[in-house]
Amino acid sequence: MSQDISHVAGGVTAPKGFLAAGISCGIKKSGNKDVALVFSTAPAHAGALFTTNKVKAAPVLVTKEHLKGGKAQAVVINSGNANCCTGKLGLADASEMANLVGIALNISANDVLVASTGLIGILLPMRKVEAGISEAAVMLNSKGGSDAAKAIMTTDTFLKETAVQFRIGGKTIKMGGMAKGSGMIAPNLATMLSVVTTDARVEAGALLEAFKEAVNTSFNLITVDGDMSTNDTVIIMANGLAENKEINEDVLGREVFSEALKHVTKELAELIIRDGEGATKFITIEVKGAESFSDAKEAAMTVANSNLVKCAFFGGDPNWGRIMAAIGNSKVKVKPANIDIYFGDEPMVMAGTGVVYCAQTVEEMLKSREIKVTIDLNLGVEKAVVWTTDLTHDYIRLNAEYKT
Amino acid sequence: MSQDISHVAGGVTAPKGFLAAGISCGIKKSGNKDVALVFSTAPAHAGALFTTNKVKAAPVLVTKEHLKGGKAQAVVINSGNANCCTGKLGLADASEMANLVGIALNISANDVLVASTGLIGILLPMRKVEAGISEAAVMLNSKGGSDAAKAIMTTDTFLKETAVQFRIGGKTIKMGGMAKGSGMIAPNLATMLSVVTTDARVEAGALLEAFKEAVNTSFNLITVDGDMSTNDTVIIMANGLAENKEINEDVLGREVFSEALKHVTKELAELIIRDGEGATKFITIEVKGAESFSDAKEAAMTVANSNLVKCAFFGGDPNWGRIMAAIGNSKVKVKPANIDIYFGDEPMVMAGTGVVYCAQTVEEMLKSREIKVTIDLNLGVEKAVVWTTDLTHDYIRLNAEYKT
Repeated sequence: MSQDISHVAGGVTAPKGFLAAGISCGIKKSGNKDVALVFSTAPAHAGALFTTNKVKAAPVLVTKEHLKGGKAQAVVINSGNANCCTGKLGLADASEMANLVGIALNISANDVLVASTGLIGILLPMRKVEAGISEAAVMLNSKGGSDAAKAIMTTDTFLKETAVQFRIGGKTIKMGGMAKGSGMIAPNLATMLSVVTTDARVEAGALLEAFKEAVNTSFNLITVDGDMSTNDTVIIMANGLAENKEINEDVLGREVFSEALKHVTKELAELIIRDGEGATKFITIEVKGAESFSDAKEAAMTVANSNLVKCAFFGGDPNWGRIMAAIGNSKVKVKPANIDIYFGDEPMVMAGTGVVYCAQTVEEMLKSREIKVTIDLNLGVEKAVVWTTDLTHDYIRLNAEYKT
Repeated sequence: MSQDISHVAGGVTAPKGFLAAGISCGIKKSGNKDVALVFSTAPAHAGALFTTNKVKAAPVLVTKEHLKGGKAQAVVINSGNANCCTGKLGLADASEMANLVGIALNISANDVLVASTGLIGILLPMRKVEAGISEAAVMLNSKGGSDAAKAIMTTDTFLKETAVQFRIGGKTIKMGGMAKGSGMIAPNLATMLSVVTTDARVEAGALLEAFKEAVNTSFNLITVDGDMSTNDTVIIMANGLAENKEINEDVLGREVFSEALKHVTKELAELIIRDGEGATKFITIEVKGAESFSDAKEAAMTVANSNLVKCAFFGGDPNWGRIMAAIGNSKVKVKPANIDIYFGDEPMVMAGTGVVYCAQTVEEMLKSREIKVTIDLNLGVEKAVVWTTDLTHDYIRLNAEYKT
């Protein structure tokens, strides 16, 4: 992290003017928190990126619609029910959630974004949701970030939040974020969700551009099982209360802002992988020497999503043959005879052929929780780094024993 | 099966003029058979289809080269070593295997096809292979089909062979086949391999065309884990000893031949899925109502390869939400609101929305070893049927505990 960016407490409520709450309204049978509300006291520039799954949950459609003006003032999220494949009634329910928040906070329903995560195919218990939204609105407070982060969890084993501060043009700016997710689709409890808040004053176009770039180098570079949910949504809100000169043409300010945003989204993405379902390893796959970033990413993702590669890492097996096979299966241009593979710093494959390696060094390395694989395609100068998990008995247990 | 096609014994040695042997030469530490030889006493029209993995094992390259003339007289296969990522030495070894068979059988090395399956990245123990080929040549006999089928097994738990007979123009024709494979890549013991033999007289072009069609509707419609090996090879040899009028312009004969070939390849493909690594279920995914066969296949494959779907079936969970999400993740055109999903005959989703179903019926169905899922995209009239397995603890165990 750059020395100009430092951690602060507070999650999404760290920036000025952001309040949050997380309460339980009974959507989850466990009685755990299931409604999160984030509110900016001032109107904010806002943007979001969504799942590319062609089956999109109702709240995704509503949030897309509400963001057409590039502004928002609140985000309401429920966990325990994905409100997906629920037809027209589900769509009406998602709109109604925005309406209820609008009424409670005296803002336009159009300024309320909605997200859901949980079971697919069941209508929301709207009486409970209505009571929950009322309660959450009352509970909003400037230290509510963690409660909100807790209320969006499903199979997550720990809450995921972070916040940083940095300076632009003499003004201190804060940025906070929360996320949930432990499988790209957790046990039918779908979804990766994230909300990033900042009090920076940022021009709407510059905000969305920086956000896209940050998401592409963070959330879009992680994979647990290659499955993408129907509900994936990442939202950013910037309310301008830090009173910095608007970030737009100011190249320096934009760079600092972008760096901070990348930092926050990367940190949240890393937390998701560390909480990957059943994972015992945090695996970094770097593909370099590619002709383009997208080639590098595609090759790294193919390796990261290979069940055989993931099983080998779970078993601590230095099985580079499976990595070669996965690279060969990817859609990108490769010359097998050019490929080098390293485990840590140890060369395993040079010019496409296995080399003698120190078994003890490699064995030790594969026993540790952190594993780094570097693949050099030796075709160009572009690279990408992807994070993933191993495939374990606990993943199977979590995803097989869970009952709809 | 058509009433005109009936099963016979003998596997690849069922057709006239085919001899085979399977022996152990010590490539496998277990002492199990590891060299298979199939020989046609008459020159045969031959063709093969190979892995599309860009990392191709040495024997794949050699066999491709030897098939340029469309003829072959022998196939030699070793198990226990994939001869892949072995550089120039590996390529020389694969050629040498063909040479050794040519010398032993007094045929041109160019008429010998080579395949390997097993560990990636290790040079073949050529002294053992040489002794093995000599022994196999001596052992060749007209009842050796099962021995050959046994010698190509790696993690397979049972040998896979079949043979049929049928009549064309008053002549009885036989066709036999063997296969190995239990993961698309088994524990670094790569590969799906298959050899089909027939005494039919078939024009070379017609043979290859019928073979491609048969493979596309059999081996290319199965998946265990979506990983494709570096060694996948399916070979066909037709030696013409049945003395039928050459199958070519004779439309009727071609149809019967094609049907028999599809039957044999489908049967072998089904055996591979029934032996899927750690599998407890045989799952049939039919996608219909697609705009094209390739759309239907792509959608079915995306569902079949979803870890979450496979885990749900292992757990007997009627989790249709994961199926909807997988369809939405596939690259094909879908309208979520058009999709119907059935488990057996039971509707689970109609017009993209979950429907009330009989929990007891569905629960019973999911407990059985055979599961049928039908997905109707309601966009067109094309369909595809894919076979797959569930994802189980035993898959993880097999693929994690196996040591390179």
